[in-house]
Amino acid sequence: MKIAIVFGGSSYEHEISIVSSIAMKEVLKNELIYIFCDQNREFFEIPKKIIKSKLFSSGEYKKCDKLTLAKGGFFKKSMLGQKAIEFDVVLNLTHGGDGEDGVLASLFEFFSIPFIGPRVEACSVSSHKFLTKGYAASVDVKTIPYVFYTKGDAMSVTNFPVIVKPVRLGSSIGVSIVKSQEELEYACDVAYEFDNAIIIEPFISGVKEYNLAGTKINDEFVFSIIEEPQKVEFLDFDKKYLDFSRTSGAVEAPLEAFLQEKIKDSFKKLYNTLFEGSLIRCDFFVVDNEVYINEINSIPGSMANYLFSDFNALLNSLAQNLPTRKTITINYEYVNKIHSCKGK
Amino acid sequence: MKIAIVFGGSSYEHEISIVSSIAMKEVLKNELIYIFCDQNREFFEIPKKIIKSKLFSSGEYKKCDKLTLAKGGFFKKSMLGQKAIEFDVVLNLTHGGDGEDGVLASLFEFFSIPFIGPRVEACSVSSHKFLTKGYAASVDVKTIPYVFYTKGDAMSVTNFPVIVKPVRLGSSIGVSIVKSQEELEYACDVAYEFDNAIIIEPFISGVKEYNLAGTKINDEFVFSIIEEPQKVEFLDFDKKYLDFSRTSGAVEAPLEAFLQEKIKDSFKKLYNTLFEGSLIRCDFFVVDNEVYINEINSIPGSMANYLFSDFNALLNSLAQNLPTRKTITINYEYVNKIHSCKGK
Repeated sequence: MKIAIVFGGSSYEHEISIVSSIAMKEVLKNELIYIFCDQNREFFEIPKKIIKSKLFSSGEYKKCDKLTLAKGGFFKKSMLGQKAIEFDVVLNLTHGGDGEDGVLASLFEFFSIPFIGPRVEACSVSSHKFLTKGYAASVDVKTIPYVFYTKGDAMSVTNFPVIVKPVRLGSSIGVSIVKSQEELEYACDVAYEFDNAIIIEPFISGVKEYNLAGTKINDEFVFSIIEEPQKVEFLDFDKKYLDFSRTSGAVEAPLEAFLQEKIKDSFKKLYNTLFEGSLIRCDFFVVDNEVYINEINSIPGSMANYLFSDFNALLNSLAQNLPTRKTITINYEYVNKIHSCKGK
Repeated sequence: MKIAIVFGGSSYEHEISIVSSIAMKEVLKNELIYIFCDQNREFFEIPKKIIKSKLFSSGEYKKCDKLTLAKGGFFKKSMLGQKAIEFDVVLNLTHGGDGEDGVLASLFEFFSIPFIGPRVEACSVSSHKFLTKGYAASVDVKTIPYVFYTKGDAMSVTNFPVIVKPVRLGSSIGVSIVKSQEELEYACDVAYEFDNAIIIEPFISGVKEYNLAGTKINDEFVFSIIEEPQKVEFLDFDKKYLDFSRTSGAVEAPLEAFLQEKIKDSFKKLYNTLFEGSLIRCDFFVVDNEVYINEINSIPGSMANYLFSDFNALLNSLAQNLPTRKTITINYEYVNKIHSCKGK
């Protein structure tokens, strides 16, 4: 099975998408091709053998073949017009904007390109923190309490420390821990730099965090090990960034069985039917033996490959069991009925 | 201002989109062009002077110019390569799939085409009834109680009558009123024909329904009149269908001031920042002086033009005040940092 990794995008997480994608060279034994979406949203085919991060920062990628997106796939100019790029399935590895907000999912859907990755609705609920909260509540999964503000709203925050986050971004961009009223305004200004809405949550120092990745294949869940991620007080972008190149080194958290079950149960409720077609990583908090969802990563860093014992086999199995779209037949029955009503 | 109406789509509501779009000829004084997305998702430019519903049911539309979608707009083949179709803004009038589920919104976003219509996240929360419920709860707007099932779930429904709905479709497709346990299985089978998930709500016979349309321009809400829609026990597809061609005839509902305010207040909470760029119609139920959201129509039939006193002016004002996307600058700071860390 030949996989086309689509990465980059017009996104604050453009660079970590590059790092994640390069990591796939090590963990996937498939024939791979790389399709880069640059910051201007132009596509380029990057040969696997030359891919390295410097190719992008230097702009050299522009010497590679430029691709266009059209019905059925990606195409490059050839002597006889257009030539389709050959692959069996796309792996969407575009973190953040374009990849995780539903834009590329829509393009693949519209142009009938099979892909591994979250579908549009799954993107909306996972990329927008406010929608994640509402969705989690409606599938009966707990979340940390929060307040939601849009620019210009009067704010009322009385208990510190809190954590201030732009409502849409991942990878800690624009996020601050705020210890006092004096720091609050600046932190909100920073967050509003990236989005027109923010959420504020209590910051729970030393909270236990656990990550679980998984997917659904033929209606059966497949789970990774549960990891307690290495933690400084707060994972900043630099630290997270290096995490995206991970290909090994995960250790199973020594969790009691009932907590493991609670975490897996919450994962199942969140994954639901909405995330079918994707492999996701859920980051949970555990407080007083209760499980709270912190974040749904619909395209996790390096696909969370390091959490699975045989990631390569799993991804191939997922690729062969993607959700299919119902065929819609349009027969113009109603339009014809109107004509006969109107007598014309 | 020249408006390109994009309509059709691979959707169960393809035909009502045609009817809605033709209605625009009467209500918009702008220069209009029509871009039809056929059931195979190919685009055609339909001259305004020849547009009528028969053109589509007969397949004659295929004689019109075929368009491709690419950066900056729609293009047709010309003697000198590609020629861009000229317009100032798209009006997305594709009801249901493609239009209201975020697919076309993503395409317009990706290819930098300004458009009137719901953005991706707004599509997700309004087109998926389960997500609408969760979203409404999180913005503090009441919804009718419900249960949510996916195919194969054990069901427990004891109080009849109920209303069974596929989770994703609009215009009453696949929806049934169920009066007894015996009818339930069949109704669910019908709903599952259209989707892999359903919701079941109590059916409240004779419930008061009120529709309010509106938009936000320069941070100010603009509302239509509140209408009590003409009602048979249950609006079936045929009846709703003819509604999509409405261009006049709305009468303001004689509602007490406090209820009008409650309805407008709920509309504002739902519209939030999420629906910016779109003109929507919210359909509310009123039970015992409490307001419940029933449905958010992110692309209402014939744009709910009949509810506004000067729809033409309003739409043009919205077109001139569309949300803009933040520019994202990618400077490869992190990629460069990695190189210097690794010393290569």
